[in-house]
Amino acid sequence: MTAEYFMVLGLLGVAFFSVAGALLGYEKSISGFGVVVVATVTALGGGTLRDILLDKPIFWIATPEYLYSTYAAIIATIFFVRYLPHVNNYYFLLVDAIGMALFNIMGIEKALISGTGMVIAITMGITTGIFGGLIRDVICREVPSVMRNEPYASACLAGGLVYAALFTIEVDYIWCILGSLFTTVFLRLGSLHWGWHLTIFRKKDFKNQSD
Amino acid sequence: MTAEYFMVLGLLGVAFFSVAGALLGYEKSISGFGVVVVATVTALGGGTLRDILLDKPIFWIATPEYLYSTYAAIIATIFFVRYLPHVNNYYFLLVDAIGMALFNIMGIEKALISGTGMVIAITMGITTGIFGGLIRDVICREVPSVMRNEPYASACLAGGLVYAALFTIEVDYIWCILGSLFTTVFLRLGSLHWGWHLTIFRKKDFKNQSD
Amino acid sequence: MTAEYFMVLGLLGVAFFSVAGALLGYEKSISGFGVVVVATVTALGGGTLRDILLDKPIFWIATPEYLYSTYAAIIATIFFVRYLPHVNNYYFLLVDAIGMALFNIMGIEKALISGTGMVIAITMGITTGIFGGLIRDVICREVPSVMRNEPYASACLAGGLVYAALFTIEVDYIWCILGSLFTTVFLRLGSLHWGWHLTIFRKKDFKNQSD
Repeated sequence: MTAEYFMVLGLLGVAFFSVAGALLGYEKSISGFGVVVVATVTALGGGTLRDILLDKPIFWIATPEYLYSTYAAIIATIFFVRYLPHVNNYYFLLVDAIGMALFNIMGIEKALISGTGMVIAITMGITTGIFGGLIRDVICREVPSVMRNEPYASACLAGGLVYAALFTIEVDYIWCILGSLFTTVFLRLGSLHWGWHLTIFRKKDFKNQSD
Repeated sequence: MTAEYFMVLGLLGVAFFSVAGALLGYEKSISGFGVVVVATVTALGGGTLRDILLDKPIFWIATPEYLYSTYAAIIATIFFVRYLPHVNNYYFLLVDAIGMALFNIMGIEKALISGTGMVIAITMGITTGIFGGLIRDVICREVPSVMRNEPYASACLAGGLVYAALFTIEVDYIWCILGSLFTTVFLRLGSLHWGWHLTIFRKKDFKNQSD
Repeated sequence: MTAEYFMVLGLLGVAFFSVAGALLGYEKSISGFGVVVVATVTALGGGTLRDILLDKPIFWIATPEYLYSTYAAIIATIFFVRYLPHVNNYYFLLVDAIGMALFNIMGIEKALISGTGMVIAITMGITTGIFGGLIRDVICREVPSVMRNEPYASACLAGGLVYAALFTIEVDYIWCILGSLFTTVFLRLGSLHWGWHLTIFRKKDFKNQSD
């Protein structure tokens, strides 16, 4: 859990989420400066909430490089998308899944460093992973991903459990990250590709029973 | 205002709001893990905002029992609702009203303990009482309760004024709680049953006048 | 950047945004107490987020006069609007633009006082300027202004760049404020009047090309 690892993970996560936010703005035909606002909120929202909850300095104020890389990734996406007219939803889902997985790991680690227990650390990972995308969906008036019957928060939870398991058996730190990253991205993309879903409630069945 | 009272009130409020959040997820047929996210946000959102505003440690991080009881109440609701197919909107409104009233009281008390004046304490009570439900409604794309022409924030305000009045005449602490709790729950449920509403603006009347 | 200037700017900004929030409630026919909640969130939301991010005491808790002037402006609007049935969207846009411009300046200044660099200060100005209105639009289920193809966040950005330029050439403090205020209000209202807009993406053009 060295500071360099953390910074690299963070900059990667921020860049992926910036691209995902800018691509959603493109998909929704937000043609003005609003696309920068949406992409910035997506990239920084989850980590900002995590730092507020843990009462730490906000990461992009303490380390402005995060803010600069957000703006750079957004501007780069805006330019590149002009020459790649066939960019579509698939790229959005891919970068969104990787960004979410990286943020999930950063949330867990920053909580553990702050001295919380594992249940709170996993909760903080999910918060960091899904909150930016949740605000983005609310602002863009999309049905939030977390409300759809697809693994999203649960992909973060699974990645968090893998992290906790590997952390407990004390494998090398890099394997905690890779294991968690792979689990979250695999579950998220796999579910979208093969249509996996997790059903807790089955309201319709009850309705049918009572008919 | 002893710590034990406070903890009991808090755990009760968190449990009621967890149940209310899970029942709304059930009503809206959110079948996946999203229901846990929605119920957790509902249960912890208002108190989290209160602690952020008052610059106190977030209650469910400082005292993880709150987080555990949130998860326990959500899981219990998910299991019980399978055997109670006729659970309906009425139960949701009841537990939501009690949760809101308890959170209103906790918001007022935590603000007063922090040394704020009564106007800010009542504002903080309303914030604690309505904010979790407001985020829940926004995520679930419901018309927020606070926007409907029913006592909601105003039920919290009335409960807050009763608390302030009883607090000022220095009756025993338990009566401040019970008086405020009864006022808020009575106004909220009474209004839903008998159709009371509070009208500040009457835009239609003006329109008719100017026709 | 004296404290008196700051307080006057702040009270003006809060009052303008309270009026804008109450007028939107009137337009949307929110007839109950919800209009007070919406107007309060509009008036205090942006500055509250700024203070949370900068880890400063929340301005309306540290200086309750802001909260009192919010409530006073809301109550005054509610009363006056009864005798001014022809109040319309134009007044709303005017007070909203002035409130946004004042909040933009306050955000920049409070960040600079906290010792941040200019990029973060301008980001904080935009946050303070648009966040209250953004929450208001989300709660009222309006398409957020920031999503429409009109200068909104970009009017704040322009005002921030003017502030930064005048600040750098060390003109008298009052000119930084007036220059930024005029720029933001002029861009916002001018764009609405003359239909200016800023286009970053042109999705339709790409679509046509690929047809």
